[in-house]
Amino acid sequence: MEVSVAAAAAVHLLVERRQTLATAESLTGGLVAATIVEIPGVSAVYRGGLVVYATELKGTLAGVPRRLLDERGPVDPEVAAKLAEGARERCGADWGLATTGVAGPEPQDGKPVGLVYIGVAGPAGTTVNELKLTGNRAAIRIESVTAVLQLLTDVLHTTPAAV
Amino acid sequence: MEVSVAAAAAVHLLVERRQTLATAESLTGGLVAATIVEIPGVSAVYRGGLVVYATELKGTLAGVPRRLLDERGPVDPEVAAKLAEGARERCGADWGLATTGVAGPEPQDGKPVGLVYIGVAGPAGTTVNELKLTGNRAAIRIESVTAVLQLLTDVLHTTPAAV
Repeated sequence: MEVSVAAAAAVHLLVERRQTLATAESLTGGLVAATIVEIPGVSAVYRGGLVVYATELKGTLAGVPRRLLDERGPVDPEVAAKLAEGARERCGADWGLATTGVAGPEPQDGKPVGLVYIGVAGPAGTTVNELKLTGNRAAIRIESVTAVLQLLTDVLHTTPAAV
Repeated sequence: MEVSVAAAAAVHLLVERRQTLATAESLTGGLVAATIVEIPGVSAVYRGGLVVYATELKGTLAGVPRRLLDERGPVDPEVAAKLAEGARERCGADWGLATTGVAGPEPQDGKPVGLVYIGVAGPAGTTVNELKLTGNRAAIRIESVTAVLQLLTDVLHTTPAAV
């Protein structure tokens, strides 16, 4: 699925539900946010986000526990969950999206290029998926953006609007 | 100037100076950050940023005074200055970039489409420029990203590295 189609689908579901969205991004570095704000009508839905490129900022800006970052490193499913929850809480949104992973060209902290965790936090809980992507940095980033927007759409379809 | 060329020029100057960068974006919605992280070697320079699309988040995330936002609205040169300073402080960086303006298609709070303020905060002070841009939403965003990166490059060229 093309990334702008994935963004439009998620935004339209949120407009219908009158719910809001926030982001916390590591490897995608603002690309999830920039993709979302291209969708017409997004200002009723998108509140804002955190770009937590440096590991330290995952703690100070998004509230990921320092001990978790020290023990697991930034490319970790629990870190993705905490980032999504931090985006939701710090930006005062109904839903939070997160990305953390290795865009390459070199492995990072012993994690291979293309290993990415995406997270969606909502009123009823948090979902994390592991991705194993191929391609260059740009391809891995775009695929990560598309995947986290698709995950949000999937979770919205299985979560009653009244939760 | 193409946007990726502007980003590469600014990043390379910061690498040479061993200084760091952060962002706070309103109308560009993460596009400044996403453009910066595409440059090879950026992880030594770019710390992260704030996407403050909703007006309220300009206060809570970036520290823009609530009274300033109430009196002037979000599209204002002083708000751009405070956003750049907030990015710098909250992300612990040497330099902070900011964008706030009207991407369209409709005017906002009495401000015309294409009116944009860009800010650069550094060790020696803060610089704000007013832009009057034309074109659609995407064009106004891209021009804003290029302009704030060029402004950073200009300021770096006139600021001694030792400040």
